[in-house]
Amino acid sequence: MDIVGHLINGQLNTSSTRLQDVFNPATGTVTKQVAIAPKATVEEAIACAAAAYPAWRDTPPLKRARVMFKYKELLERNADKITALIGAEHGKICHDAAGELQRGIENVEYACGAPELLKGEFSKNVGPSIDSWSEFQPLGVVAGITPFNFPAMVPLWMFPMAIVCGNTFVLKPSERDPSTAMFIAELLQEAGLPDGVMNVVNGDKEAVDTLLTDGRVKAVSFVGSTPIAEYIYSTASAHGKRCQALGGAKNHAIVMPDADMDNTVNQLLGAAFGSSGERCMALSVAVAVGKEAGDALVAKMADAMTALKVGECSDASNDFGPVITKEHQEKVVGFISSAESQGATVVVDGRDARVTGYEDGFFVGATLIDHVTKDMESYQQEIFGPVLQVVRVDTMEQAMQLINAHEYGNGTCIFTRDGEAARYFSDHIEVGMVGINVPLPVPVAYHSFGGWKRSLFGDLHAYGPDAVRFYTKRKTITQRWPSAGVREGKSFSFPS
Amino acid sequence: MDIVGHLINGQLNTSSTRLQDVFNPATGTVTKQVAIAPKATVEEAIACAAAAYPAWRDTPPLKRARVMFKYKELLERNADKITALIGAEHGKICHDAAGELQRGIENVEYACGAPELLKGEFSKNVGPSIDSWSEFQPLGVVAGITPFNFPAMVPLWMFPMAIVCGNTFVLKPSERDPSTAMFIAELLQEAGLPDGVMNVVNGDKEAVDTLLTDGRVKAVSFVGSTPIAEYIYSTASAHGKRCQALGGAKNHAIVMPDADMDNTVNQLLGAAFGSSGERCMALSVAVAVGKEAGDALVAKMADAMTALKVGECSDASNDFGPVITKEHQEKVVGFISSAESQGATVVVDGRDARVTGYEDGFFVGATLIDHVTKDMESYQQEIFGPVLQVVRVDTMEQAMQLINAHEYGNGTCIFTRDGEAARYFSDHIEVGMVGINVPLPVPVAYHSFGGWKRSLFGDLHAYGPDAVRFYTKRKTITQRWPSAGVREGKSFSFPS
Amino acid sequence: MDIVGHLINGQLNTSSTRLQDVFNPATGTVTKQVAIAPKATVEEAIACAAAAYPAWRDTPPLKRARVMFKYKELLERNADKITALIGAEHGKICHDAAGELQRGIENVEYACGAPELLKGEFSKNVGPSIDSWSEFQPLGVVAGITPFNFPAMVPLWMFPMAIVCGNTFVLKPSERDPSTAMFIAELLQEAGLPDGVMNVVNGDKEAVDTLLTDGRVKAVSFVGSTPIAEYIYSTASAHGKRCQALGGAKNHAIVMPDADMDNTVNQLLGAAFGSSGERCMALSVAVAVGKEAGDALVAKMADAMTALKVGECSDASNDFGPVITKEHQEKVVGFISSAESQGATVVVDGRDARVTGYEDGFFVGATLIDHVTKDMESYQQEIFGPVLQVVRVDTMEQAMQLINAHEYGNGTCIFTRDGEAARYFSDHIEVGMVGINVPLPVPVAYHSFGGWKRSLFGDLHAYGPDAVRFYTKRKTITQRWPSAGVREGKSFSFPS
Amino acid sequence: MDIVGHLINGQLNTSSTRLQDVFNPATGTVTKQVAIAPKATVEEAIACAAAAYPAWRDTPPLKRARVMFKYKELLERNADKITALIGAEHGKICHDAAGELQRGIENVEYACGAPELLKGEFSKNVGPSIDSWSEFQPLGVVAGITPFNFPAMVPLWMFPMAIVCGNTFVLKPSERDPSTAMFIAELLQEAGLPDGVMNVVNGDKEAVDTLLTDGRVKAVSFVGSTPIAEYIYSTASAHGKRCQALGGAKNHAIVMPDADMDNTVNQLLGAAFGSSGERCMALSVAVAVGKEAGDALVAKMADAMTALKVGECSDASNDFGPVITKEHQEKVVGFISSAESQGATVVVDGRDARVTGYEDGFFVGATLIDHVTKDMESYQQEIFGPVLQVVRVDTMEQAMQLINAHEYGNGTCIFTRDGEAARYFSDHIEVGMVGINVPLPVPVAYHSFGGWKRSLFGDLHAYGPDAVRFYTKRKTITQRWPSAGVREGKSFSFPS
Repeated sequence: MDIVGHLINGQLNTSSTRLQDVFNPATGTVTKQVAIAPKATVEEAIACAAAAYPAWRDTPPLKRARVMFKYKELLERNADKITALIGAEHGKICHDAAGELQRGIENVEYACGAPELLKGEFSKNVGPSIDSWSEFQPLGVVAGITPFNFPAMVPLWMFPMAIVCGNTFVLKPSERDPSTAMFIAELLQEAGLPDGVMNVVNGDKEAVDTLLTDGRVKAVSFVGSTPIAEYIYSTASAHGKRCQALGGAKNHAIVMPDADMDNTVNQLLGAAFGSSGERCMALSVAVAVGKEAGDALVAKMADAMTALKVGECSDASNDFGPVITKEHQEKVVGFISSAESQGATVVVDGRDARVTGYEDGFFVGATLIDHVTKDMESYQQEIFGPVLQVVRVDTMEQAMQLINAHEYGNGTCIFTRDGEAARYFSDHIEVGMVGINVPLPVPVAYHSFGGWKRSLFGDLHAYGPDAVRFYTKRKTITQRWPSAGVREGKSFSFPS
Repeated sequence: MDIVGHLINGQLNTSSTRLQDVFNPATGTVTKQVAIAPKATVEEAIACAAAAYPAWRDTPPLKRARVMFKYKELLERNADKITALIGAEHGKICHDAAGELQRGIENVEYACGAPELLKGEFSKNVGPSIDSWSEFQPLGVVAGITPFNFPAMVPLWMFPMAIVCGNTFVLKPSERDPSTAMFIAELLQEAGLPDGVMNVVNGDKEAVDTLLTDGRVKAVSFVGSTPIAEYIYSTASAHGKRCQALGGAKNHAIVMPDADMDNTVNQLLGAAFGSSGERCMALSVAVAVGKEAGDALVAKMADAMTALKVGECSDASNDFGPVITKEHQEKVVGFISSAESQGATVVVDGRDARVTGYEDGFFVGATLIDHVTKDMESYQQEIFGPVLQVVRVDTMEQAMQLINAHEYGNGTCIFTRDGEAARYFSDHIEVGMVGINVPLPVPVAYHSFGGWKRSLFGDLHAYGPDAVRFYTKRKTITQRWPSAGVREGKSFSFPS
Repeated sequence: MDIVGHLINGQLNTSSTRLQDVFNPATGTVTKQVAIAPKATVEEAIACAAAAYPAWRDTPPLKRARVMFKYKELLERNADKITALIGAEHGKICHDAAGELQRGIENVEYACGAPELLKGEFSKNVGPSIDSWSEFQPLGVVAGITPFNFPAMVPLWMFPMAIVCGNTFVLKPSERDPSTAMFIAELLQEAGLPDGVMNVVNGDKEAVDTLLTDGRVKAVSFVGSTPIAEYIYSTASAHGKRCQALGGAKNHAIVMPDADMDNTVNQLLGAAFGSSGERCMALSVAVAVGKEAGDALVAKMADAMTALKVGECSDASNDFGPVITKEHQEKVVGFISSAESQGATVVVDGRDARVTGYEDGFFVGATLIDHVTKDMESYQQEIFGPVLQVVRVDTMEQAMQLINAHEYGNGTCIFTRDGEAARYFSDHIEVGMVGINVPLPVPVAYHSFGGWKRSLFGDLHAYGPDAVRFYTKRKTITQRWPSAGVREGKSFSFPS
Repeated sequence: MDIVGHLINGQLNTSSTRLQDVFNPATGTVTKQVAIAPKATVEEAIACAAAAYPAWRDTPPLKRARVMFKYKELLERNADKITALIGAEHGKICHDAAGELQRGIENVEYACGAPELLKGEFSKNVGPSIDSWSEFQPLGVVAGITPFNFPAMVPLWMFPMAIVCGNTFVLKPSERDPSTAMFIAELLQEAGLPDGVMNVVNGDKEAVDTLLTDGRVKAVSFVGSTPIAEYIYSTASAHGKRCQALGGAKNHAIVMPDADMDNTVNQLLGAAFGSSGERCMALSVAVAVGKEAGDALVAKMADAMTALKVGECSDASNDFGPVITKEHQEKVVGFISSAESQGATVVVDGRDARVTGYEDGFFVGATLIDHVTKDMESYQQEIFGPVLQVVRVDTMEQAMQLINAHEYGNGTCIFTRDGEAARYFSDHIEVGMVGINVPLPVPVAYHSFGGWKRSLFGDLHAYGPDAVRFYTKRKTITQRWPSAGVREGKSFSFPS
């Protein structure tokens, strides 16, 4: 059976004493094994990254950016292989995986602009004949720890920007679907990156803790659940590291009475069920304002959901695939049942989804639950499955209070035609990423990604302009040249 | 005896169950008492700041900035009173206090530019007819905890920017010299700030811990020593707050063989002894490159130091004043003695400084120690007194290794005429603020202040552009308006 | 009779061989005379500005900005005097003059941010050990030529930014109302500006042509009518100067069927009739979409206009004052009559306005004309009087085509609640300044002012960020320091 | 014989009534003919560009940028072919042509960052609930007119940025070497650009004048000689177009007494003779400060020049090639002779250069002239040939006065080790592009290119950040949504 190992200093390393199974979630079978790095292996990766740092730091940004230009070409040329790898271990449908990859490539495109992005500010004459300017220098070795749900995109949020800023990198991808990260790291080597600048270690908590505590690692980027994000942030911070840790979400859409209901339903289908709802930006709660809007929404939604098709990744006619594990499948089903038992109405029930030929796959069908209330467990927690819950309120103010009261503040959206409603919502909602008739308001690569409240720990958001600040440190230089008669020719004898 | 109390919701509050003495360090006598806030008082201040927040947040930045324009006028009009307050409790000479105030006012001037500084980025057509933009919204209630050595300037690094960004503020100044902060806070009220936007509480660890742990406080800015900075940072971070904590320093100047030695000595006098060396940017170590430069530096320095005059704050002919406390005086003297006993040469000895008429003042005279080495205690720790130590090396590379090996990385400087030396130094030195022939490379108010390594905990530096990012959170909005025939007049009936 | 002269090198100069009458337009009487500068006087002003340039250019931006901080104080302290001066010669009502001054002061506030605004871009390592950065250096002597309709605001659009960028200035204000510019220039001297940095010359075409052709003048900013703007631009350009020349306007508001009609009428009253319509941003055409909206608009407008009061400047209960001259009064009346004769309906007729006690004043009453069409002379030309014309169309597309076909493209507005309409309008309308429910979309001082098409000649807009670019020239420096063994101590002998 | 025609709307068009010879300057023979477009052909190109504009303008910047990513790949893949085309018609040696292409590609790389570069500024709450933002919209059809000396690079300065900003383009390259521009335009089509967005017309003054006067062309970028630049600028400006016109140069290097002379000579060799001196940034005058430096410079330079090899483009061992035409060869030789006759010393004489096998080529050998003075014709005019002239002065101030007195202000350089000299020079020299020990201080693609004085007509420099402003116009939108009870649910009935 194939073993997914580590990439250290440009070399693949598959020897390991500990291995863990990797599943195809559509078939429910083990397809590979992943090596679990002990502390020493992680330290070796860190050491190689540290050794590669001085030369890479001194490489002009323009040259560093050119590796990213080449990398973009290689990612595009290998797109089919990458989407297949994603599908085989994560289960998402090929068109969805292609979308993920595309979003990842956009971060590489942004990284190509490094010479522009790394400009400092120059001030002439801060005092008489005194100048001052800022430089944004790289940090050194930085680490990324990434989740299973976007095996290509989330790593691509991190390492292209970190590396183009002059840092060297150690990535620890999810051990559930490690092959994608490994392959795209190899492509970066192929693009001409010097050995040791990009390294991948697979592993579990031992690897993570090594990255969090080793003094040579200067910064950590993390995406995952909120409890782990909190642990990562406090541990890394206590060890003197810069850290940004992105956690969970519960993204609400407000459906206003004036919303174009057909368009709204159309948008919600993809936002709620795409990638089986295993996205931190998945739209999992619809808040209908007014009975009329609520009734129409539920009726049209239920109708539209009959056309949704769940299945295996390579069949492009499928809408979404399995969830990541057997355990997770059971958890999602449990949430549906709990909502039901707490009084909600399961309008469309995906608990018994069966896919012919893939009977052991970890499938959950698209589910619609109406009359959910804020005290229900299914409302309070992140389900991370293909489940859309509908909450009903009377006014927009009530809808906003609901959202602002939730512990998470990742994404949110309003469906309306009304300019005032849109502006009031976007101004006063306590959420970091806001959509106006855009159900998945993921910022494009040249803006930055980040939630508020317990959805993100740290000052700076992921990718985009904030990533430049996160992966560099400010140096301010103040310069004065004392006068010595050079201009008048008085001191010309000095070099003789 | 006068009691310095608290400013909460625009009201002075001097009732307190616990009081602490405030000294005039030039006379060694108690002149006032400061109220030590219990937890409940701090919570009251936080509550008032929280109550004032919604209205202040919605006040247009232009209007918020106008309070700062007015504030600048008031600070300038009251400059003499402020410098007298600084002198009476901190001891620094009036011209030095005026300089401190001026640097503080520069931060108010920068805050006047809020409408420009708060601009977000707008992207048209991130997709077909989809726009996206960023807004930088305030955080809510933020806190500042400030040290004794700049009772006006360091608070002014923090609250003008925090407030102009739309936050409300709770300041806890040093209990050693609390009157200045209280007075400048009152002036801000006078400038037209609504009650509750700016609050001051005096206190000790109980007050600090309340600010660090109360959930309503969203961010903490701190300046002080490194051990406390580390505590502040880890505690605030663990309580979900944004934090920047500035700590200690050991600032080296490299004196190159081609330096203009008269100019160098001139610069070092102020940088080493000004404010009794109680500055986190004080130049406390001169690294002479080559025997010739070292000998010349020490000789000229010793000669120039004979003219230095230590004394009481109101006499403008004095160069610097006492240190802050009796205990600190003894500590500084102890460092000088330890250097001597570890083999260094005390060239000019300030241990027995006596000021006529101020025999009980906490004075230490300007001290020059030659042949200091990196294993000496006086080299490894921050002395925070009027002591310049000279280390001798053979090459510039050795000088830089010394600096890069030190745990602190706040400020540094090189004296040279040579362009290559200046550029190589500024590029490769592991220090956040670098001077070329500028011994105190404190960034101007429109750049940002921050050291590297253990001199600063946090991602973002103090004041300047980084302060805007520190005191705001990014919100990204993505907007699409679905087409409904409005343009062609098809849906005009809708508002009827 | 008082003579308004020139301010040259800090000295008032009222000796002149040629004088021209200055009227109070509310009384129709001559109140002052203005000196008309011959070529030699203008050249003297230029020479003084040129002499003052080198020292002012080398004054640090922070110091230059401090003059502007002081200037803001003085303008505010003298606000009543300034508004009285505006009223006495221009005729606008005191509250309107106060608004004008306030908008002017906002440009002074923006100029206070010069240290931030003048930052260049610094790039480390554009090649190996090669750095490059940009500086924005002042141009030298620059000139401003300003119109009668905003005797305080338009000059304040120009000279504060020009001067704070390091240039020296020669202003030629309108000879119709010269006193305001002269007075605010004197206040700038009082604020501490060195002599010769700011100069004012009054005059006519001879003065203008001297400014346009003298080689020492490096740039010209102009605001006035389109034919003159075109002449200014081509003449200044042909003489190697940088030029921005703002011309005429015909600003349309689209009133959509879903607009809140009461709010719309409310907004239009001020936008159409404020300052007697003598504003380049005056809203002079309302395009009603649909018969229903058109009828409602005209009815409500006519009704609301009965409350409007025209009169003398010092009576704050007046809504607007006289137009600037007898000739202009006749021209405005002529446009109303021509519309009538070409088939339009004069709904409210201001041609016979009489103000008791001011029977000789140049008054025109608020006028509303319905059923105006695009072939009418009153539609094609800028009336610059208190006349609102209503054009009726069936669809928003037709309304936009009308606007896009007009030769001017200064300002425009749409009244709607609909997000799609607002976005489509703002994207596709060929106009530089666009309002959504904002009838006078004059950009705030920290954005820039400028129309499209024949409303502006030049690349860069007035005030705001564009003004920084207009009043400075880019210098790009590329720097490399060849290696010579300095770091290793090899070349240390050189300074001996 | 091959005919180089036009590229209009994606189609090659070689039919023409007028043809002009294209030479290989190394052999002196005609190798191709170029079609000379009549007015009608240029108008057709403009019409096609205008037709392609609306769709291209609405294409999201990210998609436009992706054409540039692909274009970079194609330019790199076809590098050998492009350098061969350059050599065959211009004559520059293959390594030099490759350098030119690389510099051109850097502008394509910069254009790939369009989504970042096109961001506008967003201001929340410019007033209560009023927002304002800027958008940078494309101009429409823009034109480029480019010179013979950089047949690939200068076109690449213009059209990638113009096009990525959303404009459509008509290029008129030099008729001396038209094949390169034609080929790289075809590659852009291959990269996926829609037909009509990029068009090329060959021609002479008739074509130029059509571009300058046609109302559909909104902006013109030009690089060439100063008299033509002046004509282009005044003509385009008078026709209401935005224009930037780059003209001639006379670039001086100051050689200070403390300069590393070997390095200086090394740098000057390439800067003075590379590309036969036919570069607007060629270093054509060395100003030696002090007799000692002057003597050493001339001696070492003369010595080093013996190794220079002139010849045909494909032989990489050659240092430079022929000049562009027979006439130009005679003009360059004439300048050398005039210097000699006016009293200068021709130290190394290239007037009789002969290249075996290429006896009819337009060759001039590397020439060094000492003791040149400012009154000589060869000093006052731009030679544009492989001639370095040495002027001798006593002080740095004299050297700077010489440079500041010259009519051109394109590039300049100082050779020194001294920080003060470098800073004073770069601050006070009246030249747009300044090198410190960098003899060809051409700004990198992410800064902007432009001279001062009579070297550039227009406000904005070429390529880099200024190009974004040049190729777009600012639109400022101010938005308010009137309150109508939507939030409280009062107006929910409206969409029914």
